[in-house]
Amino acid sequence: MSVNSQAETDVLIIGGGVIGLAIGWRAAQQGLRVVIVDPGPGLGATNAAAGMLTPIAEAAYAERKIFALGQDSLRRYPGFVADLQRSTGLSVGFRQSGTLQVAYDSDDLAMLAETRQLQETFGVHLQQLSGRECRDAEPMLDPSVRGGLLATEDGSVDPRLLATALQAAAQRAGARLVRQRVTEVICAAGRASGGRLADGSVALAHWIVLAAGWQSASMPGLPAGIAPPVRPVKGQIIRLRTNATMTAAGLPPGLLRRTVRGTVHGSGVYLVPRETGELVVGATQEELGPDTAVTAGGMWQLLRDARTLVPGITELELAEAVAGLRPGTPDNAPIIGLSELPGLVLATGHFRAGVLLAPVTADTVAGFLRTGMPDPLWGAFAAGRYRVHSQAAAQTLEEEAACR
Amino acid sequence: MSVNSQAETDVLIIGGGVIGLAIGWRAAQQGLRVVIVDPGPGLGATNAAAGMLTPIAEAAYAERKIFALGQDSLRRYPGFVADLQRSTGLSVGFRQSGTLQVAYDSDDLAMLAETRQLQETFGVHLQQLSGRECRDAEPMLDPSVRGGLLATEDGSVDPRLLATALQAAAQRAGARLVRQRVTEVICAAGRASGGRLADGSVALAHWIVLAAGWQSASMPGLPAGIAPPVRPVKGQIIRLRTNATMTAAGLPPGLLRRTVRGTVHGSGVYLVPRETGELVVGATQEELGPDTAVTAGGMWQLLRDARTLVPGITELELAEAVAGLRPGTPDNAPIIGLSELPGLVLATGHFRAGVLLAPVTADTVAGFLRTGMPDPLWGAFAAGRYRVHSQAAAQTLEEEAACR
Repeated sequence: MSVNSQAETDVLIIGGGVIGLAIGWRAAQQGLRVVIVDPGPGLGATNAAAGMLTPIAEAAYAERKIFALGQDSLRRYPGFVADLQRSTGLSVGFRQSGTLQVAYDSDDLAMLAETRQLQETFGVHLQQLSGRECRDAEPMLDPSVRGGLLATEDGSVDPRLLATALQAAAQRAGARLVRQRVTEVICAAGRASGGRLADGSVALAHWIVLAAGWQSASMPGLPAGIAPPVRPVKGQIIRLRTNATMTAAGLPPGLLRRTVRGTVHGSGVYLVPRETGELVVGATQEELGPDTAVTAGGMWQLLRDARTLVPGITELELAEAVAGLRPGTPDNAPIIGLSELPGLVLATGHFRAGVLLAPVTADTVAGFLRTGMPDPLWGAFAAGRYRVHSQAAAQTLEEEAACR
Repeated sequence: MSVNSQAETDVLIIGGGVIGLAIGWRAAQQGLRVVIVDPGPGLGATNAAAGMLTPIAEAAYAERKIFALGQDSLRRYPGFVADLQRSTGLSVGFRQSGTLQVAYDSDDLAMLAETRQLQETFGVHLQQLSGRECRDAEPMLDPSVRGGLLATEDGSVDPRLLATALQAAAQRAGARLVRQRVTEVICAAGRASGGRLADGSVALAHWIVLAAGWQSASMPGLPAGIAPPVRPVKGQIIRLRTNATMTAAGLPPGLLRRTVRGTVHGSGVYLVPRETGELVVGATQEELGPDTAVTAGGMWQLLRDARTLVPGITELELAEAVAGLRPGTPDNAPIIGLSELPGLVLATGHFRAGVLLAPVTADTVAGFLRTGMPDPLWGAFAAGRYRVHSQAAAQTLEEEAACR
């Protein structure tokens, strides 16, 4: 696709979380001129993400299509990380040590069996472990754990390190990072053509990529019906850490060898260890609008469930408690691809899977920006899919889809 | 008492927590030349104190004597605070709104009845409330609360504001505050005569007041047997806060009208509301040496017990989790008065009651520094009381009591 010579740049990316940064990096690597605009890169949902790379975990909430996308992205991760490391020299804490999904009581065990059936319909055959085998794999698990499923291919990454490395890599590849807020998308001749920044300046571009997480829904300047239907879903996490005494006693950094997920009396919790000794416990899921308060109730719930599965966490030091807002969508699946407004590409709504889906989102969007050819992987994630749910909205869209 | 003209100053106070600062203020008010030395005034046990002024609460742990001292200090509080406010214009968040001590199950109720009996032997007659009356007094209490005791005279203060005001007041009264560590107490001619500071300088004084909390035990330079037997007892607290929505809904700032203390299945917890909307939940009691890590287990225990008594805390925002080290003594009572080393006055070991006991400690120590007459209130709290427990230590003391 020919690049508009009137535009100052080829691609303007609104939003510098892992999604926007990864797209910017990949697009710049392909020779495109890229500007990424975010007042605080990596400080949105990315900042409170645990960094689990567990495609199957999200599958239970949506459908096969999202599992397949996650699998595809997970397969890209080793190369993605190696490329980042090569480019920047920075580590992102990538580990491919697997996930152990455990059940605490008989109801949890029944739920685990359902998950396993679902997974088998996807063609995934996870290793089924007894309670004893779970404890052999993870000695810090509570003796009451009844059984588990082991996914050996799963991994994890430190989202903060990832965001830092992506910023460095994008800039090294030639992308410009502007620490401002976009106050408005600018349309001209029926096409998205730029963004107005908080200081009043205007950045014009051939392509506008909206990757502003939950805030994508309220981006000013978009014609009615174009803004993606994302909403903030609050998540609180706790970052704990093992101390020198524990390490000296031979405990693995972060107390566990791999990510442990579980349900405790029906309530879900996960624990993600890192080589640094950190153990991330997450996450609440709260529909409270744009609220990022860390609450007593959130902390209590996470500590209760984590402690039930891994009693030894009580000895761990509390490093941080933090909340973030994930971009949720009506069907819990991301929105990736060209919008009905020419020039505007959407890359948002990744909900709990933004870190997992960053490579596949970045590769396919960057490919489109270079070639103008939509990626076949986008089929199920197009923005247009929500129109069938609302005839009224569809009509409004047709009437108003042109830029005002 | 005549003041040593060789000394640079009249009083050198080692330690700038609420005890050291209050003594310094009161002594300076009486015209004495005062130097207070602390690398971080108010950042020790004071920083993690809740500020309850509840003499009876401590009585269960010790004896009548400590209850009487606490009662005496509580009676001094209104004047102490008014004087501070007059001198500095600073508020310390003083409230005299009472304490409601509640029981959650029948065992807790039995324990409450015992507490009541103990209190009656002290001549204190607290108001006994049924579960319903407890909830009438504090509507946010859980319906399962079985009964309570109301102490209407009790109060609370914000220890951080208190430390700030005491610093200002002490300096306004002429005391000098030196932000350094004392590396050694200096003795000369069988008498404590000064302190060496971290920068190598020496501060000479007629009187040395050791008010360094748990660190008083390991102060270098003291002859054997002179250092007070204090140990660090770790306490973790959580500071929560009510938000604007709650205030708009008519809830009191900090959710409660007064301090609520309780036992939940035998485990003690307290909740101290402040006018600012803060609710302090405390406190763990851990014998781990000088460890100030905030732990997952500490947070979980506090949240669990507080939530059981006042379920509404789950909505509160977490402002801070912090740990401090209280100076514990073998009998949980403070050590106040002249030591067996001439020139050295001890004011430490206040354990959980440093904030409560600051006024009486300051008044009596400052009185002694001016007049040289020991206060009759000190009788039960003299450092020498521990000698009878250890003949070996006593012997060592006699052999080595002279300065090396």
